[in-house]
Amino acid sequence: MDNLQCTICDKKYLLDDIRWKCDCGATLDIEYEFSFDIQKISKRKHNIWRYRESIPVNNDENIISFNESFTPLVKTKYDNRIIYIKLEQLFPTGSFKDRGTSVLISKVKELGIKKVIEDSSGNAGSSIAAYCAKAGIECHIYVPEYASIGKLIQIQSYGAILHKISKTREDAAHAALSAAENIYYASHSWNPFFFQGMKTFSFELWEQLDFKAPDTIVIPLGNGALLIGIYLGFKDLLKNKLLDKLPHIIAVQASNCAPIYKMQSEKLSELPDNEWKTTIAEGTAVTKPIRAKQIIDIMSKINGEIITVTEEEIKKALTEVCLMGFYLEPTSAISFAGFKKTKTSKNEIIVIPITGHGLKTTDKIGTLLKK
Amino acid sequence: MDNLQCTICDKKYLLDDIRWKCDCGATLDIEYEFSFDIQKISKRKHNIWRYRESIPVNNDENIISFNESFTPLVKTKYDNRIIYIKLEQLFPTGSFKDRGTSVLISKVKELGIKKVIEDSSGNAGSSIAAYCAKAGIECHIYVPEYASIGKLIQIQSYGAILHKISKTREDAAHAALSAAENIYYASHSWNPFFFQGMKTFSFELWEQLDFKAPDTIVIPLGNGALLIGIYLGFKDLLKNKLLDKLPHIIAVQASNCAPIYKMQSEKLSELPDNEWKTTIAEGTAVTKPIRAKQIIDIMSKINGEIITVTEEEIKKALTEVCLMGFYLEPTSAISFAGFKKTKTSKNEIIVIPITGHGLKTTDKIGTLLKK
Repeated sequence: MDNLQCTICDKKYLLDDIRWKCDCGATLDIEYEFSFDIQKISKRKHNIWRYRESIPVNNDENIISFNESFTPLVKTKYDNRIIYIKLEQLFPTGSFKDRGTSVLISKVKELGIKKVIEDSSGNAGSSIAAYCAKAGIECHIYVPEYASIGKLIQIQSYGAILHKISKTREDAAHAALSAAENIYYASHSWNPFFFQGMKTFSFELWEQLDFKAPDTIVIPLGNGALLIGIYLGFKDLLKNKLLDKLPHIIAVQASNCAPIYKMQSEKLSELPDNEWKTTIAEGTAVTKPIRAKQIIDIMSKINGEIITVTEEEIKKALTEVCLMGFYLEPTSAISFAGFKKTKTSKNEIIVIPITGHGLKTTDKIGTLLKK
Repeated sequence: MDNLQCTICDKKYLLDDIRWKCDCGATLDIEYEFSFDIQKISKRKHNIWRYRESIPVNNDENIISFNESFTPLVKTKYDNRIIYIKLEQLFPTGSFKDRGTSVLISKVKELGIKKVIEDSSGNAGSSIAAYCAKAGIECHIYVPEYASIGKLIQIQSYGAILHKISKTREDAAHAALSAAENIYYASHSWNPFFFQGMKTFSFELWEQLDFKAPDTIVIPLGNGALLIGIYLGFKDLLKNKLLDKLPHIIAVQASNCAPIYKMQSEKLSELPDNEWKTTIAEGTAVTKPIRAKQIIDIMSKINGEIITVTEEEIKKALTEVCLMGFYLEPTSAISFAGFKKTKTSKNEIIVIPITGHGLKTTDKIGTLLKK
């Protein structure tokens, strides 16, 4: 049976209930039964909705999409090894978040919701704002005061209403949570429909690799949106007997802000209370990721690795990958820095996504070039 | 027979001659015979190289590509009419220029050239720099001193060498032309191989519209790279009997800088010597487009229209299209402004491309939002 299900107390709700968290306060996941028909899929247009059966939106009329295409997969050499770089920055708003947003905002439309809030200092805010603009849904974005002006301009250009909250990223999250008592929370970390879009990353990659999973995927780790999405997608393929094993996942955090790494490596039952520092990989600078336990649970099930890299390593990787002709934001460079610290065997198929566009962080890249 | 052919004196050269202009000083075009096999094409990956037969590069080993994908075509409503917006800003470097660059730099590699120059204050510079980075070709970009810092950062991040030339865009072009006596000129206005990539816009659109041409395409007009490319592509389809008529093309210039409009409407034999003003649609701010006569010749052959719009009209269109969820640079907004001034009939299929990413012009969009 299709349900919303609590990640802690296992309580179930109907999929079409208007809720984004459990009565117990925990995050929800989605149970959704479907089967894949490769013949059908291969006849459809190249956008994330070609995996229609896997997406818990009832009516096609509610689909909000820019026909987000198959992002290119580019075979290249890095660190003297063959890798495949997946250009997830080439989504309409400049980041991989559009996968999750297209599904989430379609569901928001289906539920008849007219107004949403989200908190984000970056990619998720722009993404939610753009899809709300297309859907005609009122959109409120909570951002920390320090958020870069470029990102705020993009959010506002789509007509979203900005709420600047003093101090930190967490303050913005708290303010949004509190406002979410009355307004639907279109959150990229809380809302389970978001992850139902993120899983299309795996389906698409599987098709691009001629219906195989890669051996290894290296990704940034902040809120865990991509990690959870990748896991859900490959698990679906496994369940449908379209794969025989899951890929190895290496998730990378900045040493300056590595709460999930610390929680896992020190076997803590709760997130640590460290005062973390800032990192140039700003998308991973999440000190209290709401799904931390779920992430650690997934990583232990699939024998995944969480590793850390220094600011210097991130900056070096960023410069190197730009010089190969790719323009990426520093958050994406963290994966390349992490990859250099891991061993892989010959003939392994390794995939590293560029999650956000370099054009979003011109100022930071400019500062690096001056050095 | 396949040739380089002068656009003025008709002199012919071998395709593999290392030259980008005629001995008489005029621009060159390419004569290239091929036939399309729809069955073959439809089995290939979704990137511009699926039209392999149409591209005058001899050896697959020389292809320099990021697997540039089919850019999304989004059906939407604007000015109370149904239109299709084609998201050409979702190429790797953030603009439609990557189509031409992938072909041009592949040919540069094939010709054994190790070093190129280009002049551009914007999209073409970034594009040539990125593909040269991937190809391992030394790249020199001439830019006017006033060029925006963001664009220069992107060019430099790819490892290209910047040459800042005082004063105007034309000064940069002259400096590049003079340097091009000794170094191969990978120019998006002079080099005929660039246009051989631009024509894939038409092939792709034709496939996306289920093997039909649209009725009308509205585009910005500066150097004419897209206009000439679109014309070449649809002409190829017509020649291959895959179409029965060419689409109607509406090319839009800013009233502030409209040399081709003036040349056509006043039936001048040469470009006028007006002192043009700046325009927010900076990609169209080309006072002496080198292929002006060729553009007017094409437009008269296909009965195309050249129209102009004011700065206020461009700004208004930019804001409107952003509010629909699309992030575009002001140069792309000129087409939407132009579209509003033209009449179309019911059931016409109208396509408007977004040629450059909004993320490239955050400062300008920010200034507009403040008003």
